Amino acid sequence: MALKTLEDLFVHFLRDIYYAEKQILKTLPKMARKAESEQLRDAFEHHREETESQIENLEKVFEMLELKARGVTCEAINGIIEEGKDIMSEAESPDVRDAGMIAGAQAVEHYEITRYGTLIAWGEQLGKKDAVKLLKENLEQEVAADKKLTDLAVSALNREAA
Amino acid sequence: MALKTLEDLFVHFLRDIYYAEKQILKTLPKMARKAESEQLRDAFEHHREETESQIENLEKVFEMLELKARGVTCEAINGIIEEGKDIMSEAESPDVRDAGMIAGAQAVEHYEITRYGTLIAWGEQLGKKDAVKLLKENLEQEVAADKKLTDLAVSALNREAA
Repeated sequence: MALKTLEDLFVHFLRDIYYAEKQILKTLPKMARKAESEQLRDAFEHHREETESQIENLEKVFEMLELKARGVTCEAINGIIEEGKDIMSEAESPDVRDAGMIAGAQAVEHYEITRYGTLIAWGEQLGKKDAVKLLKENLEQEVAADKKLTDLAVSALNREAA
Repeated sequence: MALKTLEDLFVHFLRDIYYAEKQILKTLPKMARKAESEQLRDAFEHHREETESQIENLEKVFEMLELKARGVTCEAINGIIEEGKDIMSEAESPDVRDAGMIAGAQAVEHYEITRYGTLIAWGEQLGKKDAVKLLKENLEQEVAADKKLTDLAVSALNREAA
């Protein structure tokens, strides 16, 4: 893949996040099944639904660019998910597993936050207003999901300490 | 590795970020050499120095826990760095390479921000005040580095547009 222009980079990163969102969509139901806390399970299930709509938003952006929606392998998200799976399988108590899964999910959210942030900056530069609107929708959901995970982590830690 | 308690998780993530910081320390000089913009080169060089002091901080935390400082392979940072290297080698112009490197470096920063955030929350819960102080120092540097990269990205895009 030759990256000659900012437009090429934009498309490359769009494919990267499209691949990442699809991997996350596959992983969230597994995390929900493993969650001990009902609130955490609900959070993962809710974010799975959000991820579906984010994938649709990305498909609309591909359409605007008159490109077929397709992903490119994203080693970053693969590594983050792999690490999360290791923690899930090595945790020996439900509380420790929940804490580890929250941390893993927050690493995923932060990866998406940085990628959407970059895509929005480049999209604005390239004058892709409609695409930027959809990317901002996705970004806002990721920021909210990260915040919710922080709240769940804090309340879980407080519960454990009580 | 058995993860039975929150303390086990804390130590595991400490080793994870220690490995990550060491990989980043090796990568930053390569990025500085490839940077076209002088400001970006300076930013990478400055962050290499910060990374050295962050590694020292982590070694102090290991010492506080009476543990030998050692890393565990962090697939997440390996994936993020791998992806950054691909972009660096595929970029066909200096401007595109700089833009791609900034995006790659921001993905690294966000990974570190989420990991330090988690370690700080767990450290507070575990009553490790001195460790938390050092981890907060590292977190603040990562947040500032990320912000600086955003500023550089925006000014580079504006320059290109002019």
